Amino acid sequence: MATLIAPPNHSPQEDAESLRKAFQGWGTDEKSVISILGHRNVHQRQQIRRAYEEIFQEDLIKRLESEIRGDFEKAVYRWMLEPADRDAVLINVAIKSGMNYNIIVEISTVLSPEELLAVRRAYLNRYKLSMEEDVAAHTSGHLRQLLLGLVTAYRYIGDEINGKLAQSEAEILHEAVKEKKGSQEEAIRVLSTRSKTQLIATFNRYREIHGTSLTKKLLDEGSDEFQKALYTAIRCITDHVKYYEKVVRDAIKRVGTDEDALTRVIVSRAEKDLKMISEVYYKRNSVLLEHAVAKEISGDYKHFLLTLLGKEE
Amino acid sequence: MATLIAPPNHSPQEDAESLRKAFQGWGTDEKSVISILGHRNVHQRQQIRRAYEEIFQEDLIKRLESEIRGDFEKAVYRWMLEPADRDAVLINVAIKSGMNYNIIVEISTVLSPEELLAVRRAYLNRYKLSMEEDVAAHTSGHLRQLLLGLVTAYRYIGDEINGKLAQSEAEILHEAVKEKKGSQEEAIRVLSTRSKTQLIATFNRYREIHGTSLTKKLLDEGSDEFQKALYTAIRCITDHVKYYEKVVRDAIKRVGTDEDALTRVIVSRAEKDLKMISEVYYKRNSVLLEHAVAKEISGDYKHFLLTLLGKEE
Repeated sequence: MATLIAPPNHSPQEDAESLRKAFQGWGTDEKSVISILGHRNVHQRQQIRRAYEEIFQEDLIKRLESEIRGDFEKAVYRWMLEPADRDAVLINVAIKSGMNYNIIVEISTVLSPEELLAVRRAYLNRYKLSMEEDVAAHTSGHLRQLLLGLVTAYRYIGDEINGKLAQSEAEILHEAVKEKKGSQEEAIRVLSTRSKTQLIATFNRYREIHGTSLTKKLLDEGSDEFQKALYTAIRCITDHVKYYEKVVRDAIKRVGTDEDALTRVIVSRAEKDLKMISEVYYKRNSVLLEHAVAKEISGDYKHFLLTLLGKEE
Repeated sequence: MATLIAPPNHSPQEDAESLRKAFQGWGTDEKSVISILGHRNVHQRQQIRRAYEEIFQEDLIKRLESEIRGDFEKAVYRWMLEPADRDAVLINVAIKSGMNYNIIVEISTVLSPEELLAVRRAYLNRYKLSMEEDVAAHTSGHLRQLLLGLVTAYRYIGDEINGKLAQSEAEILHEAVKEKKGSQEEAIRVLSTRSKTQLIATFNRYREIHGTSLTKKLLDEGSDEFQKALYTAIRCITDHVKYYEKVVRDAIKRVGTDEDALTRVIVSRAEKDLKMISEVYYKRNSVLLEHAVAKEISGDYKHFLLTLLGKEE
């Protein structure tokens, strides 16, 4: 369930004109920007962008970038991009920065097969390179194999489960992931090609056999990027709502707050399942997510994220 | 250029009724089947299939399978499938038979990125497993890596070339492919992720540096499946018309004829570039392709392939 509150009827032209007014004069009227864009769904935002371009011969996103700044700007910018394009940007930043491969794993395992293809198309349009080309050129070894497998996957999405396979592949994962002695390539094959339903059956079988989950105590301080990526893949496939709750929790808990992660989850999930993430957060922390967010950040950035959370002050 | 001769106007209903008539009575009127289906383009064939289903409550392809047999049946069956579905079947047969990985390489490198995605969709619909899932489960090592890279690719199709990259990656290919001592994984990365335009620039750079082509004397009797797949990938990317000419030539030259290969090329390319393949064949062999085909095979099968070649007797 989404947290975004968007009116069913709006006029893209009126919105474009109101935004233009907010940009004019001395300083920007951030409150107006938030009250409009923070209440429009993905389809409406694209309509506004087109209407703005038509009326004022100017790209709304570029204008926004020149009007506002900091974490607020970053959040609005990501919010204004079409989801596939936004994910393409997130993946490109992760590749170029040479870290946060978790974001690549997260996007490629959480999205549906068709959504992931849309991200690959967006990536190609934007960067004139394929996503796998960039991933492969910046990584090596098992990490490369895993990331390539995940970003290029087009998984079966039906409900059919092969019980025998779940059994045998639970053992492959045990040997490779938990005992770190089996074939990592086989573990990569299983995680990057099987359907999510099949993988969840495999993880359940694992728990029945070994009395503990595959990810339990998997990471320690010596874990490398490949092991972290494996861990993220398994968590995202198992239950991405729980995974996102953890990302948000860590982002808030960190000294100084991880604004990038906080923005990413709220912007990416506000129209999808942020309500569920927020509920899991409350159960786990006994604090409302909007209160935790409000305590951590401030100003327009805070105001904007709370709007997306459906909780304006 | 295509060899198929299809009339711009046809009535799917009339075609369906003529086919029904050809099936009735004692034996099948194969000549009618050929004269109709051998002169309809992909769109028209799908219309006939739908019309037949509507009028006679029967699947035309299933009926054809029960009416005709042998190589003729196989050729008509493949011809009647939508191209993406046909390629999915070809790849599945190649995977299950555990040989002819060349077919997987051929399809995944010759098709456009969007066509290849359509094959992956068709594969999923038909087999309830993803194509990469099946490929990965039946192969291992470098062969698996290469095939996975190729079947999951979504290459950039623009004309931009990076000359520096062409230079450095020509050396990667030299070391790995020709000298067999560099990193095979790097060679796989290059071949499975770079755009075809970029790869052709790399192959050209290779020839400038080394005075010979990358595939020259690459294979010998000791070559394994991985090396053969590498070879096929490079040839298909370089010039798939020349590659297909070689497939057809080998199919005809072989004692006993390789009907599977002959059918595959003629059925798959009749609506695309079979005329060019046929021209290259003539230049290379000083024999018209239709004459060579007519000499090798017989009966309805021959009559059908010649019709697709645009050369009825």
